[in-house]
Formats: sequence, C-alpha cells, structure tokens
Amino acid sequence: MIKITLPDGSVREFDSNVTPMDVAKNISEGFARNVISAKFNHVIVETTTPLTEDGALVLYTWKDDEGKKAFWHSSAHILAQAILELYPNAKLWVGPAVDNGFYYDVDMGETTITDKDFKRIEDQMLTIARGKHDFKMRSATKEEALNYYKGRNDYKVELVEGLEDGTITFCDHDTFTDLCRGGHIPNTGIVKAVKIMSVAGAYYKGDENNKQLTRVYGTSFPKQKDLKEYLELLEEAKKRDHRKLGKELELFTFSQKVGQGLPLWLPKGTALRAQLEGFLKKAQQKAGYEMVITPHIGQKELYITSGHYEKYGADSFQAINTPKEGEEFLLKPMNCPHHCEIYNSKPWSYKDLPKRFAEFGTVYRYEQSGELHGLTRVRGFTQDDAHIFCTPDQLDNEFKKVIDLVMYVFGSLGFENFTAQVSLRDPEKPEKYIGSDENWEKAENAIINAANEKNLNYVIEYGEAAFYGPKLDFMVKDALGRSWQLGTIQVDYNLPERFDLTYKGSDNELHRPVMIHRAPFGSMERFIAILLEHTGGNFPLWLTTEQAILLPVSEKYENYGKKVLNLLENHEIRAQIDNRNETVGKKIRESEMSKVPFMLIIGEQEEKDGTVSVRRHGVGDIGTLSMEAFAEMVKKEISSSLKPFNV
Amino acid sequence: MIKITLPDGSVREFDSNVTPMDVAKNISEGFARNVISAKFNHVIVETTTPLTEDGALVLYTWKDDEGKKAFWHSSAHILAQAILELYPNAKLWVGPAVDNGFYYDVDMGETTITDKDFKRIEDQMLTIARGKHDFKMRSATKEEALNYYKGRNDYKVELVEGLEDGTITFCDHDTFTDLCRGGHIPNTGIVKAVKIMSVAGAYYKGDENNKQLTRVYGTSFPKQKDLKEYLELLEEAKKRDHRKLGKELELFTFSQKVGQGLPLWLPKGTALRAQLEGFLKKAQQKAGYEMVITPHIGQKELYITSGHYEKYGADSFQAINTPKEGEEFLLKPMNCPHHCEIYNSKPWSYKDLPKRFAEFGTVYRYEQSGELHGLTRVRGFTQDDAHIFCTPDQLDNEFKKVIDLVMYVFGSLGFENFTAQVSLRDPEKPEKYIGSDENWEKAENAIINAANEKNLNYVIEYGEAAFYGPKLDFMVKDALGRSWQLGTIQVDYNLPERFDLTYKGSDNELHRPVMIHRAPFGSMERFIAILLEHTGGNFPLWLTTEQAILLPVSEKYENYGKKVLNLLENHEIRAQIDNRNETVGKKIRESEMSKVPFMLIIGEQEEKDGTVSVRRHGVGDIGTLSMEAFAEMVKKEISSSLKPFNV
Repeated sequence: MIKITLPDGSVREFDSNVTPMDVAKNISEGFARNVISAKFNHVIVETTTPLTEDGALVLYTWKDDEGKKAFWHSSAHILAQAILELYPNAKLWVGPAVDNGFYYDVDMGETTITDKDFKRIEDQMLTIARGKHDFKMRSATKEEALNYYKGRNDYKVELVEGLEDGTITFCDHDTFTDLCRGGHIPNTGIVKAVKIMSVAGAYYKGDENNKQLTRVYGTSFPKQKDLKEYLELLEEAKKRDHRKLGKELELFTFSQKVGQGLPLWLPKGTALRAQLEGFLKKAQQKAGYEMVITPHIGQKELYITSGHYEKYGADSFQAINTPKEGEEFLLKPMNCPHHCEIYNSKPWSYKDLPKRFAEFGTVYRYEQSGELHGLTRVRGFTQDDAHIFCTPDQLDNEFKKVIDLVMYVFGSLGFENFTAQVSLRDPEKPEKYIGSDENWEKAENAIINAANEKNLNYVIEYGEAAFYGPKLDFMVKDALGRSWQLGTIQVDYNLPERFDLTYKGSDNELHRPVMIHRAPFGSMERFIAILLEHTGGNFPLWLTTEQAILLPVSEKYENYGKKVLNLLENHEIRAQIDNRNETVGKKIRESEMSKVPFMLIIGEQEEKDGTVSVRRHGVGDIGTLSMEAFAEMVKKEISSSLKPFNV
Repeated sequence: MIKITLPDGSVREFDSNVTPMDVAKNISEGFARNVISAKFNHVIVETTTPLTEDGALVLYTWKDDEGKKAFWHSSAHILAQAILELYPNAKLWVGPAVDNGFYYDVDMGETTITDKDFKRIEDQMLTIARGKHDFKMRSATKEEALNYYKGRNDYKVELVEGLEDGTITFCDHDTFTDLCRGGHIPNTGIVKAVKIMSVAGAYYKGDENNKQLTRVYGTSFPKQKDLKEYLELLEEAKKRDHRKLGKELELFTFSQKVGQGLPLWLPKGTALRAQLEGFLKKAQQKAGYEMVITPHIGQKELYITSGHYEKYGADSFQAINTPKEGEEFLLKPMNCPHHCEIYNSKPWSYKDLPKRFAEFGTVYRYEQSGELHGLTRVRGFTQDDAHIFCTPDQLDNEFKKVIDLVMYVFGSLGFENFTAQVSLRDPEKPEKYIGSDENWEKAENAIINAANEKNLNYVIEYGEAAFYGPKLDFMVKDALGRSWQLGTIQVDYNLPERFDLTYKGSDNELHRPVMIHRAPFGSMERFIAILLEHTGGNFPLWLTTEQAILLPVSEKYENYGKKVLNLLENHEIRAQIDNRNETVGKKIRESEMSKVPFMLIIGEQEEKDGTVSVRRHGVGDIGTLSMEAFAEMVKKEISSSLKPFNV
C-alpha cells in the first residue's frame, strides 16, 4: 500500500502501481473525465504512470496551465504524425508546447507548406485525434534509439547521440513514435479542435549558420467553442495592438533617424502621459512623496559604486567620453544611484525619516534591435520611480502605504483583476543574501503582513528574492485575459551599504536606512501600451485628454459653441470645438475614429433651448440634454471611477 | 574748415585741428566737464586728439560703457605708476580695462603683494591722481621703443619686437610712460576713488609653461559715492549668489560621483521648477502650443542631417556605441532635430499650420570643468523649448505672438527692465546666408514690424544674424543692475531644408515651412539662477512653492491649524503646518531663513476668534486677520502680480 497526498492535504491509501487516473476516479468519475495531466512528487508524469511509493499527487484539467501544456504537447505529436502522413519525406526535428499552442520544426526537403495546406493538415490531425489513440511511454537503450532513427532521420540521430543511455524514452500513439520526455494527455480523442496558425523559418538548433527548417505553429482545444473564442480573442487583440492604436490615435511615433526603440511622443500621447503623471503625482503628494529631478547621465564611477556597471556595463550603451578631460559617463539605466546621492547630500536624523524621493525618471537600456517591440520593449523609457529611505522599524508601515497606492492606481485605471507574488529568501541558503538575518526577517514579515492586511491574492515564492532584498510583484489581467507584470515593490539592503547611507538614531549613533524601490506603473511607455490593449483606446473618462468635442452643424452656431465650451471649461471638462467647414457626418466619423467619448452636436434647436445633442462614442445618440445636465453627467461618471486617494 | 557730424545727426563746422574736447565745449561747457572719452569715424581717440578731416564724432561720459572703459584703462596706467613707485624692481607686462575695473600683470621679482599692501597702493594711486596729470600720446619708432625698454623691462622688449614700425605709440603722464594704443580720459584728476580688489597669479602670455606673474585687480570711480555703492552692490551680489541661496533654500545640489555640472534638483527646487513650468505650460496652451516628449539621445546620423555633428561633434560629449550592432548615438545638444522628425511623421497641409511643438527638453553639452559655474554654466540643462512650423506669410503674426508670450513671462516674474537686439543679415554679403532674398526680407520685416508694434526698446545689428536666419534676443537687467541675456526668438530656413520639411499649399504644390526657435526662459537652470540673484530668493508670491506656514504655539492648536490649512487649500494657497515640538521663536527663525512669505502664528486667542496672527517675511508682524481676510489678501496680491495671459 502507498499513501497519496492530495493538494488539499488529504491522504488516501492505494495499492502500489495505482495510476493518477485511478486516483482521479477514486475521487470522482466526473472529475476523472476532466483530468488530462498529473504531477507526482514535483515531477510531471503520465496519467497512466504506475505510482509505486508514497507521495504528493496533483491532477490537472484543461483549466490548469499544466493541463494546457500537456494538451498542446500531445497535440504536437498529432501534428508530427499528420505531417509525416501527408509528406512522407519530411524529417522531424523537435516540437514543444508554447504559449497558446505548440509548434513542430520540420525539414520539408524540396516541398513547402503554405496557407493553402493548413486545412489538409488540420483535417489529418482531426482524423488521427478521433481514433482515440492512447499515448504510451516506453524506455529504450541508446542503441535501440539510434537504430530506430538511422537512415530514417539524421536530426533525431544527432539528438539521441547527445543523450545519456538510461534516460531515453519514446512515446507511441497510433502508428507514430517520437523521442519524448513525457507529459501527455490520456489519449488523442480529447483533442476536438485544431488550427494551424502559421509557418515560419527556423534555423536548426537556432543557429543561423545551420539549415533553415519549417516551423509549423498550431493550437488545439478540447471544444470547438474554445477554438472559436480563441480566434475571436486574437482578432480583438490585433485590433487592440498598441502599435496600431498608437498610430491611429496619434499618440507616438518612431523615427529611423532618431533611432529604433526611442519613442517620440506626439501631442496627444504627451497629453495622455501628462494626465497619468498628474494623477500619480497628486496621489504621491498626499502620500508624502517629494519630487526630485536628476540628470540622465552619471559618471562611470557612480555605477561602479552602485554595482550596476559590473553587472550590466558590457551589455549596455557604452560609455560617453569627454573630449579633453578623460571623464567617462554612462546613460543612466536606473534612477536609484542618483537618488542615493540626493539622500547623501545632507545628514539625516531618524526624525526626518521616511524620506520618499519620486521622479518620472527617463532611463536608457540597450536592447538588441530584434527584441524591440512598440512601447513594451524600448531602449529609453520613463519610470514612475520612487525610493523610500526609512528605518527598519518603519518598513512595515511603508510597505502597506505603497500597496495602498498601487491598489489605488490599478483601481482608478480599471485593472480589477490582479495577483501578487511575494519573493522571499531561499531559507536554506542565507549566505546568498546581503543584510542581517534580523533585517531580512523584518522585511519579509513586513511584506507578508502587508499583503495579508491588504487582502492581496498572492503566492509566496522562496528563493525568488533578489540578493539585496525581498519583493512584491503585481500581475494584472487585461480585458482579453492576458497577464502583464506591472508594479513592483522591492526592499533593498544593498545600495544603502554601497553608498554608505546613514541616519542618526535616537541613540545618537549612525544607522543604515533601508531603501524601498517602487513603481506602480513600471514605466510610462509599457503602462500606456498595456492600457491601450486593455481598453482598446477607450480610456477611463477621467483620463481621456479630450472628453468632449463640440460639432456645430454650421458656422452660424460657433458662438453658441463657444458658450458651451466656456461652461464645460468652468466645470473642468476638457473639450474642443470642431469649427472646420465639413459636414457633421464627416466630423462625427472622425471623432469616432479618435475615440472622443462625447460628441455634442449643436444647431438651431440646441441654441434656442440651451441644450446639446449628445452622442456617445461606440454607443450612438443618447439624447438631448441641457448644457448643465450634460456637465453634471460627465462629472458624475468621472467621480464614480476616480475616487480621491485617501492616505 | 572740417565738418563734424554728431550722433543726433547735426553737423557743425570747425577749424581743422579742433579736438573732441573743443567740440564738447562748443556744445556746452557743462557737458564738456563730463566728457572723458571720444570716438571719431568709428575709432577711439583721445579727447585731445586734433581732428583734421570731416567725420562723425561721439563724445562719451562716465554713463557710457566706452567712457567707463577709458576711465579704467587710464586707471590701469595710474596703478602701474604706483606699483613702480612702491616696488622699483617690479617689471610691468600689460594692463587692460575689464568689466567693472582693470588689472595690471606685473613680475614682482622676489617680493609679493598681499591684502595688507592694498591700502598703500590705493593711497599712492590717489596721490598721483590728485596731481591732475594729462595723458599724452606720442608716436615712437621701433628703435626708440626698444632703446627705451632694453635693460629696463624684457617683457616690454618682447612686446615691442612683435610690433611693426610705424604703429608704435606711448602714453605719458606725470613721470610715467607706457606702451599704449590710446583711449584715455583727459587727466588723472578725474579719478577720485580707487580700490585694489584682489591679486591673483597669471601666466605670462596665458601659457602655463611660462613664468607666473602677479595680476593686480583694481577698480576706480569719478566719485567716492560711486565706489561705496559698487562695494555695497558686490556685498549684496555675494548674498544673492545663486549657489549660496540654492544651498540655503535647499533647491539643488551637485554630486562629485554623478559628475560636475550636472545639477540634482532637491524637492524644493523641483517644486519651484514645476511651478515655473506649469506657469509657462498654461500660457503656451492658450497660445496654441502642443507639448511633445522626445528622447535624450539620437543617432549620429540625425545630427549629421541637422549639421550639428559637423559643427560641434569633436568638442562635445563623444558618441555612445551599442555593444553589438555598431550603432552610434549622441546625447542631444538641441531638441530641434527631434522636433523636425516629429513634424516629418505625417504630411501637412497649409490649413494645419502653424504647428507649435513645445518641450521642456533636457539637453547635454560638454563644457570644460573650469568653465562650469553653479546653474549658469552646466553640462545638462532643460530648455523651455518650442519650434513653430509655419508658412512664410504666417511669420509676421507668429513673431508677434511669441513676443507677447515673452513679455508676459518677463512681466509676471518682475523683470521690468529689458532691451532687445534685432540681428539682421549683412546687406553687403547676401551670399553668406541660406534662404531666398524674398524670404529673408519677409522674416526681417516680420521681426522689425513686431518689435515696433510691441514697442520694444531695441537696437538693430546688421551682420549679426545666424547664417540660417535673423533673430531677436532679450537682455534683462536684474535688481542689482546686472544684464543677463534671456529669451531668444530665431527664424530658421536651414533645418527645414536639411530635414526636407514640407507642407501642401493651397496651390496643391509642396512648399517649405519656416521654423521659429524660441525659449522665453532660455533654460530652467540658468533662469532660476538669474531669478535667485534678481530676487535674492524672495520669489513673486504666486511662484513661491510654500506661500504660508502655520506655526501653532503649542500642540493644543494643531486641530485649529488643520482647519486653517483646509481653508487655505480650498483657496488654492500653498501652506504647510509646522507641528514640531519647538518654540515659536525657533520656528519663526527657521521660516525666515527659508523665506516663506507668510508665517501664521496661532494660539488660544486666534482659535477663539477664528483668526491668524500674520508675520510677513522680511517685514515682521502685520497684524491679526480672520482666516478669510488673510486668504483674500494673499489672493489679491497674487492676482495683481500674475495676470492671466490673453492671446
């Protein structure tokens, strides 16, 4: 008999050689029908693997990431079989599961696969799937494996040659056999929907000196409906691509001459940034932050002190020399060294702390051109950075206050759905970390206490802390269900040491302050990109830089338009007037394109009545209102989504 | 008979050999008593020089810069005589007039001059001056000059050897003779007050491989009272030194590690900058500017296109290389190339123009470390930059609008006293300039029309335009009477060519827009430095970041303090409360130090009456007022100094 511990802590006894699927059935037949993958004692196993010792078992369904991974990994086997059946001369290389699907790299020889072939491959895969073939793992000696592939597939021969005897396993299903480490769904029949997404070139072993193979991307689902939803999501994501929206809404641009990865913010994008920055500044001021401004370069010496040079120097933008004096400067990759020098510009007492220095600090980090992507991966970006210098005893309270601020930011911007990760020391390797045990305990407890008190939905990861301190990261889900890492709060014992930061304690002795790094947005560029994709460009009303546009039906009503504009201005509603000599129809179309929330059409009747005919972006006409009633409606909507920040 | 034309255009006839002083006397005896220097046909002459041909004569008094120069040049002769009389072994080198005085470089041999000797030298100079010795110029051959100095002064021998025969003149007065080009006051008696300011080392011929001579700095005045005022001014300027005030008011600091010439803005300085920037942003928004944000680096290629690389590349911060891709970036020395690329990011029609792109753009320019000075000479600074792209026909109106904005900025900040310079082409060398004659005429007329219409006190300088366009510069006088160059408005035909900027005209053809560069502040760093020295740190009330501070006499009145604070906040008055457990006396002293305009003392009586006891910085108690009356008083003072900007 062996003891199987389930994730809820319960323990069940079974005969040895029980399989994960047996355990699932023991729990409930209904549950077992959904189980598609399993992990035993932290190792992924087949659902059919006989278990022969006590241990912890986790059973996965399609809802789990591990379940999806097994599903797509198994689908890659089906894809490979389909390709070989349709293209007998194709030579397989490898095919893993990836985000949202899988691929297989294949040497297609003289033939090619194009869009037109996708349907054939999908049909062939579904035919195989419907056969409900079990996935069966078996071990093989290196010799057996080599014999199997010799003359059949040189890529696999090379692969086997790199493996050690005793570690080699195959997976069989139907007529197909592949070298494989395991982790499959029970049988092919679970795969009900497949889609070949694209083909691309991929160098053998990722080396551009090698032959280029064909990478066939696919995805698969347990229900046809899931596939449909996924394809709709992709379509929606394409529409919401921040690069596309950024261009359409005239927010930012790039210039070949200025350089790749260096965004130029156009007037509308600059206004949007100013709104966001103003919003955070206001909250930060309430929370006791003080703004500072520091230069975008610093002497190499500064980054040697901070340790950044040793860590990033060689892979970064290289040093800037001065013509005569032999000085060397670096573009600043981080604001913290500069803020440490501000802290160091005068002596502090414990009564002065915490000091909270905030800066919208633009930093520059070299990225290879191939890595660059719109605003999410750039070479220059502005962090909504701040550094809190406090006593170890103040950490607890400061951490809570930072969480409050981050929650306020996420809530005001419509990111309701987020999780957090607390990264702590590896308790078995305390020597890897700088700072005293006592301080680490204080800091880790501070984070966990704060996360509990603020009711965060968080996981703890041991060993994930940086060597200089524990941290708390936030992941938000956007409207399309995609996860983005946003704000981070990080404790730092390292820089205070390196910069010899001190304060005079109540004991009249000098002590080291603790630093907290934090950035709720992360960077303005990345945050705006995510916000664009989350909202599709329909920002919360309070954030929109142009909340309403007045569209007079003819120039006769310009004066009335000015009157309305004036009233809106007095209510601090941001509005413009479109006085161009164009038809109202054209003006409406263009306003819809630029996603102005409210279009106010004014003509004879409106002027007579002191009203505006209101059209809401994406909704249509919502009726005629008095100027005042419209202003009140807008203000009400704003105040319901943007609450004041209460410290 | 010769004809002498005076500056007012009048012509008088005199016998040949008339002297400038004779002409002065002919104008009026009273005027002649004040004349101390003269210029004839654009050449500085002695007041005793016989005039032998028709020409234009300008007569200078102490009030003119040329008069002061002659005065101090002559005083340098007196200083040299005094030194020789006191130190017979001293060897003179040269001694020119400089700003606010003069110096003489002397080889003192084995002796030295220290502070203690200054009085002796001054007394000796005054004794000489009182002798009322005439300054008399005479020509000498090279041989005569060499004979005079041989064995007497090797420095002068070397000087004479470098001169051409026929050009050598001496000046004699009393017992003293010096090699001299001329330009003296009539006699030594006019010098009534002298002061030796300092001594410093100075290398012979400015070459550090040569012997170090002693440079004796002095100043002199026609009245004792003038000297007294000058010394008081120096004392006041020392108190107002922006480096000193910046430290006392905790506005900015420098860090050796970050690098020299790279200011770090502390919280109070950052708040001040934010006020100034917000003020200008608001006015610019009204004037139709749109804010943009561009990166602090650009590819070398960008600056090759703009022409900046060719002009400044070798003497600037050197290029930044990327680790693998062989790209070269430069720190941006100017924002204009980036703004041109923004303009180029989409096509424009004449209907879209003018476009006005504004940015508080931080630029980096290399300066030798010896040139750096506080915030007025730095290596990184933020320009309140904007570029207007318009049609040639719009130049006139745009120029006027920019002048309005500059006037508004100066007026709001208390710079009432300013002059302007219009820099035009050299009409005789049109080939030196880029752009068509027609456009130059348009631009020059636009500037002059605008300057006239706006009643500017300006001078025209021909040949002072940049090769790419004419410009208008503003010089302000600060409270101590010192001149500073501030805002500049500049027309540019060059960058539109280099960046191939176009717009579609009403003729459906592509045309070149004209660019205007403008920066009312110049740079935030330099402007704040000047503002500090102008105001001594007592900024206009509207600009002060902390307008009032509440000083409760004990913690019992904190709650009342919060009530007052709340009322002030509702009136948008920036106030803080000093709740520290310190005496009111100490709190007042510290608030006076940090120059908070209003200190509000609150205790039992104030709470009972709903009042505040108001103390004004630098004035003292100004009585007890109700909270509301105080708020109204502050608002009234603000609205009287900061008017809204009317476009």
